[in-house]
Amino acid sequence: MLGIDPGLVATGYGCLERTATGIMVVAAGVIGTVGSAPLADRLLELHTGLSELLVKHDPTAVVVEDLYTEYRFPRTAILMGHARGVIYVAAAQRGLPVLALAPAEVKRVLAGNGAAAKPQVQRGVQAVLGLTDLPSPSHVADALGLAFIALSRSAARRT
Amino acid sequence: MLGIDPGLVATGYGCLERTATGIMVVAAGVIGTVGSAPLADRLLELHTGLSELLVKHDPTAVVVEDLYTEYRFPRTAILMGHARGVIYVAAAQRGLPVLALAPAEVKRVLAGNGAAAKPQVQRGVQAVLGLTDLPSPSHVADALGLAFIALSRSAARRT
Repeated sequence: MLGIDPGLVATGYGCLERTATGIMVVAAGVIGTVGSAPLADRLLELHTGLSELLVKHDPTAVVVEDLYTEYRFPRTAILMGHARGVIYVAAAQRGLPVLALAPAEVKRVLAGNGAAAKPQVQRGVQAVLGLTDLPSPSHVADALGLAFIALSRSAARRT
Repeated sequence: MLGIDPGLVATGYGCLERTATGIMVVAAGVIGTVGSAPLADRLLELHTGLSELLVKHDPTAVVVEDLYTEYRFPRTAILMGHARGVIYVAAAQRGLPVLALAPAEVKRVLAGNGAAAKPQVQRGVQAVLGLTDLPSPSHVADALGLAFIALSRSAARRT
């Protein structure tokens, strides 16, 4: 399961796998783009990076945060939308479904509070995955958190 | 020159070419997506449709409207951003630059007024291109208008 936190500057990703002993981190990191490059090149870079991840780790699905209803900075949100659109296309090109989880639900599950701050979510992700270090930056923690919830839910549905 | 007015439901396009006798319409239309399909499938449909247009008409550049600073409906604007991101990627995959024109500038040039309504822009596009019929829907008129301005002046900036 590949969780993704889309952003034009930095897109966080976290790939988790269910094993006999629990949920394991397969890969986690950030796809960054060069701020001075044309927008088209940056989005192509994101598309290429993501397509490579999908080939390499071969997840069964991709999971992102659902859209909010309110955005404080619409222009930034629209640029995030560009990155998000690219992610959907890369997933669809691999024939993968894209799941979406409500942001407040993600925070509630990981930090016990639908309005939790980023550090709380990072600590929650560290706890549920039993990580030695705090997942950082928060883009990576968010991506891992999404993948964790999506994986745990699919388990719940199966049993 | 391929003008594009991105939208998730319908993306307008208009391809213009400079000939010995003036600017000629090569192709114009709409790429629609099925509203009931998953977002990933709709964006892939748009990517495929656009990539086909780029191969078929082989434009030298793509031109879109620049982002506004204010959006009345952020959620709709973010979904438009998804479609816009897909367009940038499709263009970059063909090695084409994506130009952007300020929305108010487009309206001013085509309808003499930076706050012109859609029908005024449609009539302006009809006039500058010498079309028998009013270009319709307005997505197509906007796309043709963008291509016309990008072809006829060097005001478009690369984003």
